[in-house]
Amino acid sequence: MHDPMHDWCKEMWDFPRSITGEGVRQTLSYLTNLVPELVTHSVPSGTEAFDWTVPPEWNVVEAFIDDNNNGDRLIDSYDNGLHLLGYSTPINAIMTREELEPHLYSIPEQPDAIPYITSYYKPRWGFCVTQKQRDALGDGPFHVVVDSTLKPGHLNYGELIIPGTNTDEVLLSCYICHPQMANDSLSGVVVTASLARWLLSEPRRLTYRILFIPETIGSICYLSKHLDEMKQNTIAGFVLTCVGDDKKWSYLPSPSGATLADRVALHVLKNAETLSYLTDRGSDERQYCSPGVGLPVCSIMRSAYAHYPEYHTSLDNLDFISQKGLSESFDTYKHCLRILEANETWEMIQPCEPFLTKHNLHSGVTTAESRADLFLNVSAYADGTMDLMELSNVIGANALQVDAVARSLFHNGILKKR
Amino acid sequence: MHDPMHDWCKEMWDFPRSITGEGVRQTLSYLTNLVPELVTHSVPSGTEAFDWTVPPEWNVVEAFIDDNNNGDRLIDSYDNGLHLLGYSTPINAIMTREELEPHLYSIPEQPDAIPYITSYYKPRWGFCVTQKQRDALGDGPFHVVVDSTLKPGHLNYGELIIPGTNTDEVLLSCYICHPQMANDSLSGVVVTASLARWLLSEPRRLTYRILFIPETIGSICYLSKHLDEMKQNTIAGFVLTCVGDDKKWSYLPSPSGATLADRVALHVLKNAETLSYLTDRGSDERQYCSPGVGLPVCSIMRSAYAHYPEYHTSLDNLDFISQKGLSESFDTYKHCLRILEANETWEMIQPCEPFLTKHNLHSGVTTAESRADLFLNVSAYADGTMDLMELSNVIGANALQVDAVARSLFHNGILKKR
Amino acid sequence: MHDPMHDWCKEMWDFPRSITGEGVRQTLSYLTNLVPELVTHSVPSGTEAFDWTVPPEWNVVEAFIDDNNNGDRLIDSYDNGLHLLGYSTPINAIMTREELEPHLYSIPEQPDAIPYITSYYKPRWGFCVTQKQRDALGDGPFHVVVDSTLKPGHLNYGELIIPGTNTDEVLLSCYICHPQMANDSLSGVVVTASLARWLLSEPRRLTYRILFIPETIGSICYLSKHLDEMKQNTIAGFVLTCVGDDKKWSYLPSPSGATLADRVALHVLKNAETLSYLTDRGSDERQYCSPGVGLPVCSIMRSAYAHYPEYHTSLDNLDFISQKGLSESFDTYKHCLRILEANETWEMIQPCEPFLTKHNLHSGVTTAESRADLFLNVSAYADGTMDLMELSNVIGANALQVDAVARSLFHNGILKKR
Repeated sequence: MHDPMHDWCKEMWDFPRSITGEGVRQTLSYLTNLVPELVTHSVPSGTEAFDWTVPPEWNVVEAFIDDNNNGDRLIDSYDNGLHLLGYSTPINAIMTREELEPHLYSIPEQPDAIPYITSYYKPRWGFCVTQKQRDALGDGPFHVVVDSTLKPGHLNYGELIIPGTNTDEVLLSCYICHPQMANDSLSGVVVTASLARWLLSEPRRLTYRILFIPETIGSICYLSKHLDEMKQNTIAGFVLTCVGDDKKWSYLPSPSGATLADRVALHVLKNAETLSYLTDRGSDERQYCSPGVGLPVCSIMRSAYAHYPEYHTSLDNLDFISQKGLSESFDTYKHCLRILEANETWEMIQPCEPFLTKHNLHSGVTTAESRADLFLNVSAYADGTMDLMELSNVIGANALQVDAVARSLFHNGILKKR
Repeated sequence: MHDPMHDWCKEMWDFPRSITGEGVRQTLSYLTNLVPELVTHSVPSGTEAFDWTVPPEWNVVEAFIDDNNNGDRLIDSYDNGLHLLGYSTPINAIMTREELEPHLYSIPEQPDAIPYITSYYKPRWGFCVTQKQRDALGDGPFHVVVDSTLKPGHLNYGELIIPGTNTDEVLLSCYICHPQMANDSLSGVVVTASLARWLLSEPRRLTYRILFIPETIGSICYLSKHLDEMKQNTIAGFVLTCVGDDKKWSYLPSPSGATLADRVALHVLKNAETLSYLTDRGSDERQYCSPGVGLPVCSIMRSAYAHYPEYHTSLDNLDFISQKGLSESFDTYKHCLRILEANETWEMIQPCEPFLTKHNLHSGVTTAESRADLFLNVSAYADGTMDLMELSNVIGANALQVDAVARSLFHNGILKKR
Repeated sequence: MHDPMHDWCKEMWDFPRSITGEGVRQTLSYLTNLVPELVTHSVPSGTEAFDWTVPPEWNVVEAFIDDNNNGDRLIDSYDNGLHLLGYSTPINAIMTREELEPHLYSIPEQPDAIPYITSYYKPRWGFCVTQKQRDALGDGPFHVVVDSTLKPGHLNYGELIIPGTNTDEVLLSCYICHPQMANDSLSGVVVTASLARWLLSEPRRLTYRILFIPETIGSICYLSKHLDEMKQNTIAGFVLTCVGDDKKWSYLPSPSGATLADRVALHVLKNAETLSYLTDRGSDERQYCSPGVGLPVCSIMRSAYAHYPEYHTSLDNLDFISQKGLSESFDTYKHCLRILEANETWEMIQPCEPFLTKHNLHSGVTTAESRADLFLNVSAYADGTMDLMELSNVIGANALQVDAVARSLFHNGILKKR
């Protein structure tokens, strides 16, 4: 089967995403086609959320810099949405190079990269260009046009609650506010959509809260409406982003590094680089893990934000990510969710070792020793004080293997659930 | 004084021990001569004990393989009890080499060793031979005789409760089911018997529960009758086995590695190899430490089961062990028991350092500094929160030395018992 | 400004200090000139204090050894107070070298050093001399005079309680019983006096209990009168001694190493040598930290007692210490006290990150990143469970910097005090 995640990225690539505006709604509309159960919500500009206020909605008709001598189009946001500084205020003026200069952003060390820059809360306009474009601009005068609007409107997000038989909840959160960023943001969106589709197709014990939101202001808005229920129900959560390339794994712990989310991530990951919540946090875990919220949230990533040179530039594009990377990330998160589903606490019904021969779980001298060992080890440690993951870590085996053995012992009347 | 432990091993060597049968009763009878206070018990075949059932009693008249061509006796269980696979079902038949082959057990890598193999719960017969014997057997036909019986009978064990002034109990457990194994099993039996004799001769604070039982089914039976009282009273316990040679020390911890038994073992042992409960457990601690039982039991050994090449072969014989090894093991366990007897919690009666000069515990400039230091260190740390072993570990001194100093401070009115 | 601490040492140098007597009173009188708020107390000889009794008061008119052949003064306590063994009983006798010999103390390895030796509680007399003096004494006979008195009198000490707005108390303790020891004892006295003067000049939250006492018997006497209130109020304490030279820093932890005093010392000290309470304790922390007292007391030192060759010899003199060393020690203790004053527990008022732009604590793209980071890090971790020091250690920043940021967030309505 052709896995479509990379195609989805391609199809959503050009939607002009920001924290508000048409591009967000186009993205949510596309996602609703993938996951029809997704519910979209809108929050009016001016709504207060804790210390924050939902900003005006931003939309752009066009934005360009022309050479006013000959009318040549030098920079055009149609070529690449990143050319326009996010949330630029409108302008239509003839200006000198000197006047234009403070409004230009480029990266001298990466002459072919357009930087991704925004100014959501300080009114400002600007153009982000490659250093080569900047060097070739000439002296002007220039005709500079930003045909944007900043007007009362809405902040939009998508929410999907998939109920389980249990009110214990797992949070999956990704962000839909980055225009034309492939690994940062978009990879997380398509892996989250795939996980939602998979979860809907499977029987499940746990409830899932899956969010497609603008980063920061979106999670703050959402928390301001749902804080109490999330604090009460959430047993683990993940911020999904930077899951598109196929380089090494990264793990950003929660502040304590010891929540159920951390424990499952550490159980599943091998050889991941462990980042620091103090110095490396950068996405919505900043809200989910904040004092007064304190949800058990961490992040499993590939090349993590701010840790690869293409980050927040036009080089974080569809070539930077791969179907292989997206699929591996999907599998890794699926592994985590399967373990969370299985993460029950087992307890031996009777004292002493079980008589495995009687239960045909041990065939004497010639049995496969390792499988018998796992039966005996589970029996030797399942004292009702450890959940599946702790039990597996003590035994030194994979949690899903231990789950299979525990269920077999359960069906033989040897183990019970605590 | 000649220490008789090695002699006792020699005298019990040929008793045909298994988990049931005459050999067990002969062994218990011999032990009752050594320790007249020992009480023997018998449990009928078919008795249920948790997940287990006491098996039929097994006895053997003779077992051999003859060359049917000339009547030569090729293998004879009178030569070495290990030749007969433990719990072999009866047979009396003429058969070809091909028919005999699946019933032969040998170790190609140890051509002079007879392996020790049993099949208590799957009906089976077999002969264990050296690889050299196997290679020399010829083509047959063979006359194969196992004149054994598997009939309702009893499982036998010995129990000795030595009461102290206190109901807190120490468990000493060894197993009497191995035929002609010297380090594995028999060494533990004679060291336990010596400890019982020593304990009976001394004043004591603690109560001792000393068991001579068949491994696994014996401890499971015993626990099924005494679980509640043992869970309530046992403060520490040890499985005594593999204490006969004089090579390095081994320590098999309890599952937590932190019980009082572990703490005293770690305090007493120097340079012992620490084994793993997960991967190295192998005797009755599997029952004593199981979920639902959870007794504080560990094991101090020399060459530990499954960790020496002679293990479970005819090479684990009377030459493998030595009187030196047995005596050192006895001394080490005695050291442990003495510390457990002394393991009280001391507390300073008054604030501040004691005035040692006044108590003649410090003679000023010229005193033996180290002894004064120990008085001061005990006074500086005895705050009523640490038992003797913790206090000794904090001070970095041997517990019996600290005990002597604490008792001296006690008699001078400086310390009290908590 | 010329810092006078080294001058103070010089002026108090010759006062004949011991655990009782005129020298103690002269020292307290001098200190009362420096800190007029200081209150002096006296405890009669024979007073009981826990296991101890206040000894007779000791005073000396003169002490010398003359060559009885020619009347030459060979050793004279006027030259150096250390020549006379502390608490020497009186004697006036003609004696041979052989008779004198057991009363002489010198250090063969340090031929120019007079050792400092006392015998407070065993009646004894003696002379401490350099090895060179001893070698040159000749054969006698000698006229030996110790014109001392041991008579009922008083033990004297100074006490200063500086009240804060809060009854939580910090203990600063130094000892005034060492004659002519500069680093050991006197350096601690002048740094403590300086801290007292500084504390009196500043607004403060905490209460300070500052003690100038004879070592051991002084702290025991003091504790016997004030134990309950000190146990109830003391949140941290320090024994100030060995703070006069400018070599490496040493840190003597409390028994647990985890009290508030330890935590502030560890926060402030960089590259200090950590000593052991078990093997290195040596001053009044022996009483303050004893079982039944258990105050949170540690010691920040430079060259620590018993860890430098000049210790307890005439070489621990005014040249061994320096104004630089004294000033640095004063600054380090001042840093500790400032952190203790600031050590409150901060908690975010609202969930999620604060909107720093709104509060003008973040100016967008061009702000000083590190300061913004500290605002964000404090906001991200201030969950009301950590005091300032824990918060600072988690964030990896200096506590006083974190305090400044926390107070700024407090004034912006973002943080509250727990």
